[in-house]
Amino acid sequence: MQGEELLRVTGDDGERTDAARNRRLILDAAAEIVATCGPERLTTDAVARRAGVGKGTVFRRFGNRAGLMHALADEAGRSFQHAFMAGPPPLGPGAPPLERLIAFGEASIERMRFDGQILRAAEQQGGPDLDHPTQQLTRLHLFVLLRGLHVTDPELGAYQLSAFLNAGLLLHLQERRGMSNARLIASWRALVSALAVDADPRRTSPGPL
Amino acid sequence: MQGEELLRVTGDDGERTDAARNRRLILDAAAEIVATCGPERLTTDAVARRAGVGKGTVFRRFGNRAGLMHALADEAGRSFQHAFMAGPPPLGPGAPPLERLIAFGEASIERMRFDGQILRAAEQQGGPDLDHPTQQLTRLHLFVLLRGLHVTDPELGAYQLSAFLNAGLLLHLQERRGMSNARLIASWRALVSALAVDADPRRTSPGPL
Repeated sequence: MQGEELLRVTGDDGERTDAARNRRLILDAAAEIVATCGPERLTTDAVARRAGVGKGTVFRRFGNRAGLMHALADEAGRSFQHAFMAGPPPLGPGAPPLERLIAFGEASIERMRFDGQILRAAEQQGGPDLDHPTQQLTRLHLFVLLRGLHVTDPELGAYQLSAFLNAGLLLHLQERRGMSNARLIASWRALVSALAVDADPRRTSPGPL
Repeated sequence: MQGEELLRVTGDDGERTDAARNRRLILDAAAEIVATCGPERLTTDAVARRAGVGKGTVFRRFGNRAGLMHALADEAGRSFQHAFMAGPPPLGPGAPPLERLIAFGEASIERMRFDGQILRAAEQQGGPDLDHPTQQLTRLHLFVLLRGLHVTDPELGAYQLSAFLNAGLLLHLQERRGMSNARLIASWRALVSALAVDADPRRTSPGPL
């Protein structure tokens, strides 16, 4: 399946069994540390201890703390990527572009409850990495949907929309500003509907979905 | 003038003359280092040497490198803030909200040529600081204009729009993707025009400005 092929972009590529097992042990240990103690407690030392592997193994596999953080964020994003690329509509293929765009924003906002901490921590490792494969995949998805809506500049539109779904921003709005997911989703819906209306002058209101 | 009062938010507040002179020396030295060698060369040591003041003076005034970076970014933002809050229209008061919004995006995109490096460096100090006074001022400005356009959620809209004007993102698009300012401005214009159309159903197209 094509979706599965593309997902390789952020995944493992033909690793040997023992290497794959170590990778799994390390990532599970890292995820436990983040869930229990918060991302600021994630160090290569702590992960090696908890996974029962040598520090050298963690280092060879993931490099430094930032590498580990990004690998964790990729893990967290894997099932989400599968859902929007190959899962059931409206998030997955089969629904009209506007409906899929709205569903994408909803899912991105809602997954912050589970993945937000680690996504933000990964973003903050030297600033948001716009060239990261996960970011590229997200933008490619948004690009295809925006092109389907006939917006004038779908490439740039994908950058704009993904900036709004940045984990650091969403968590700030949820945690520091106390904004509900319902409010964030309503605003996302208004935004993408506006873009769709703007692109196609025959439509004068967002209309029912 | 009210605009000047508000600008105090990021400025000096009744400093004594010698302290103000040291501050000036330090910030000028820092700006020179950034302009000549790039933001990565900005260290408290290098600034102290160049400004001819003690390291302790730099430290007391600005704390660490991040504090210095933020102070430099604030400096760079000062004349921009004055322009959008108290300067001539359409960027300043006196033009309709949509026209001012468009002008704000244009000016933000164009100032990257001069201020982008330092703004991005400041953003990357521990991730973008959404609570920073400069960010708050920008959002307040966007909020007022979006409210003037009767959009449904101007507070959240201000967060969304300022996310797109993030220096890290704009520089990435300009430098790494080779996007022209004209293209970025056209997209900004389409975005805010779409928001305006969506807010007021009597308008069915962005219309001439």
